Amino acid sequence: MQIRDWSEEGFIEHMLEQFKAPKDVVGIGDDCAVIPISDKDVWLITTDILVEGTHFLKEQSSPVDLGYKSIAVNVSDIAAMGGVPNYAFLTLAIPKDLDRIWLEQLSAGMKEACQKWNVNLLGGDTVCSKKDIFLSVTLVGRTSSQQVKYRNTAQVGDILCVSGYLGQSGGGLKFLQENVSNGERFIEAHFRPDPDPKLGAWLASHEEVHAMMDISDGLNRDLTRLLEASKCGAVVETTHLPISKELMQVCELRGWDPLEIALTGGEDYCLLLTIAEESFTQKFRETLYPIGYITDREGKIDYLKKGTPLQLKLKDFKHF
Amino acid sequence: MQIRDWSEEGFIEHMLEQFKAPKDVVGIGDDCAVIPISDKDVWLITTDILVEGTHFLKEQSSPVDLGYKSIAVNVSDIAAMGGVPNYAFLTLAIPKDLDRIWLEQLSAGMKEACQKWNVNLLGGDTVCSKKDIFLSVTLVGRTSSQQVKYRNTAQVGDILCVSGYLGQSGGGLKFLQENVSNGERFIEAHFRPDPDPKLGAWLASHEEVHAMMDISDGLNRDLTRLLEASKCGAVVETTHLPISKELMQVCELRGWDPLEIALTGGEDYCLLLTIAEESFTQKFRETLYPIGYITDREGKIDYLKKGTPLQLKLKDFKHF
Repeated sequence: MQIRDWSEEGFIEHMLEQFKAPKDVVGIGDDCAVIPISDKDVWLITTDILVEGTHFLKEQSSPVDLGYKSIAVNVSDIAAMGGVPNYAFLTLAIPKDLDRIWLEQLSAGMKEACQKWNVNLLGGDTVCSKKDIFLSVTLVGRTSSQQVKYRNTAQVGDILCVSGYLGQSGGGLKFLQENVSNGERFIEAHFRPDPDPKLGAWLASHEEVHAMMDISDGLNRDLTRLLEASKCGAVVETTHLPISKELMQVCELRGWDPLEIALTGGEDYCLLLTIAEESFTQKFRETLYPIGYITDREGKIDYLKKGTPLQLKLKDFKHF
Repeated sequence: MQIRDWSEEGFIEHMLEQFKAPKDVVGIGDDCAVIPISDKDVWLITTDILVEGTHFLKEQSSPVDLGYKSIAVNVSDIAAMGGVPNYAFLTLAIPKDLDRIWLEQLSAGMKEACQKWNVNLLGGDTVCSKKDIFLSVTLVGRTSSQQVKYRNTAQVGDILCVSGYLGQSGGGLKFLQENVSNGERFIEAHFRPDPDPKLGAWLASHEEVHAMMDISDGLNRDLTRLLEASKCGAVVETTHLPISKELMQVCELRGWDPLEIALTGGEDYCLLLTIAEESFTQKFRETLYPIGYITDREGKIDYLKKGTPLQLKLKDFKHF
């Protein structure tokens, strides 16, 4: 059996069985590992790779954007658990003939992101690859043990929310793939994810926020993960999905399906969370987009269009 | 300018300038970053990549050994600063057609190493690559802030020591490269590094141990790094280098230069340290191999053979 037939989930399950976390620590399975460092505080640790040919094309991405993104996607994982990012570590494999300027620009992009989110790059390892560029960042963040949010704690009846537009990055990828013009703002969203750890920490400070994670592989896939982890289901009212006017217009012009882009485009790097129904008050309404609610249909998403069941054939982003 | 003309050191220097560590933290430049987590304790964090075609050939390495090695080389960095390893994070990029059994064996090798050194694998990221396998591990360890050892604190007059045989792994690589038989024990040393964090912690508990690091790129190159960091020099008596009888015999048989293998073969993953001369007592003599002493000739190594200056033309392992 090849890895493409085993799937990412199959491999993660295998690793989970092999590597059980010690009692006081949360290991494989959420956005970050959670490690107590005192009675009050925990460290959050996450890691993400970007691989040439899979996550970016060298000709299409500027090294500045790539460096920026390598930090941003990890900041998003820390934000998803309510933490503040602190320390980054970089591993980099590059071909011998890579231009020095490319590397300087990569580090400039990383620096820009590190300054934005107050992250210190503390170390790494740089080696030679035969051909492709591999870029992996491990990020350490911090929060109080009272305030960590997990993906496996949603409760039936919770309001399901997202914290930002869906499909902006997915739209950017469409522009890149189809090589058409006037997609600058979407391409920007694709190359420059904008996670918000302050919002994540604010949300995490509320007990009534039950479960939280970030959206990296598209709402459809990531919500399924949250539901499986929490052993519950969800109803999503598709007319409530936050899709920007600009994306709607572009989709009409180009014959793209905005719903497909919003649900499976991926790399939104906003937050997906559930809030106790009775506590979904004004302060949350001002900040979040409610898109549905949590049900007891384990692992199942029921999509509606103005209350009527909607059959969707979605093709999720797959790592393998 | 291409990266091969800039060198790894040039890039590290550039990153050092770009990313200054905050006051209480040690960042880029030693075996690990050092981060205080309480008045008494620090965390040590290190990261290392293994890339197919550069660090291993898929046909020559068993995935079990590769998984084992990916943990071991990081344990060596933690040991080099006197710490105990705790938590590991894995990023993995693999081609779609990779066999599932290969991955299961990789994780079995990682598990074996994790059990040996009491490490918990707490998370990671697995993605698809076009062709090559890329394997990066970040390891978190711990020690007391009193006990951390650095590479930049050697003092003129110190006794220079190593903690194990040199060239065993380099010999193994020779056997693999020249495809000759009867090199099992050397190939084993190459595929199964055996760092000793208990020894590292014991050494680090002694004030008279001034500087310490691990040997990953060969004594010649790593000693140069220690000397540059400490702004001093060293005399190395080559007849005192611990080279195994077996390696000497093999070198004679095959016409290999044992000194070259011992000094530049790399991947010894033993410790290189300096100890105050007057404190180099029996307990250290029993455990370590004294190979020379520290001088004031900044960044320079003077090799001797039975006290007579020796001119060596060494070709170090270079990452680029």
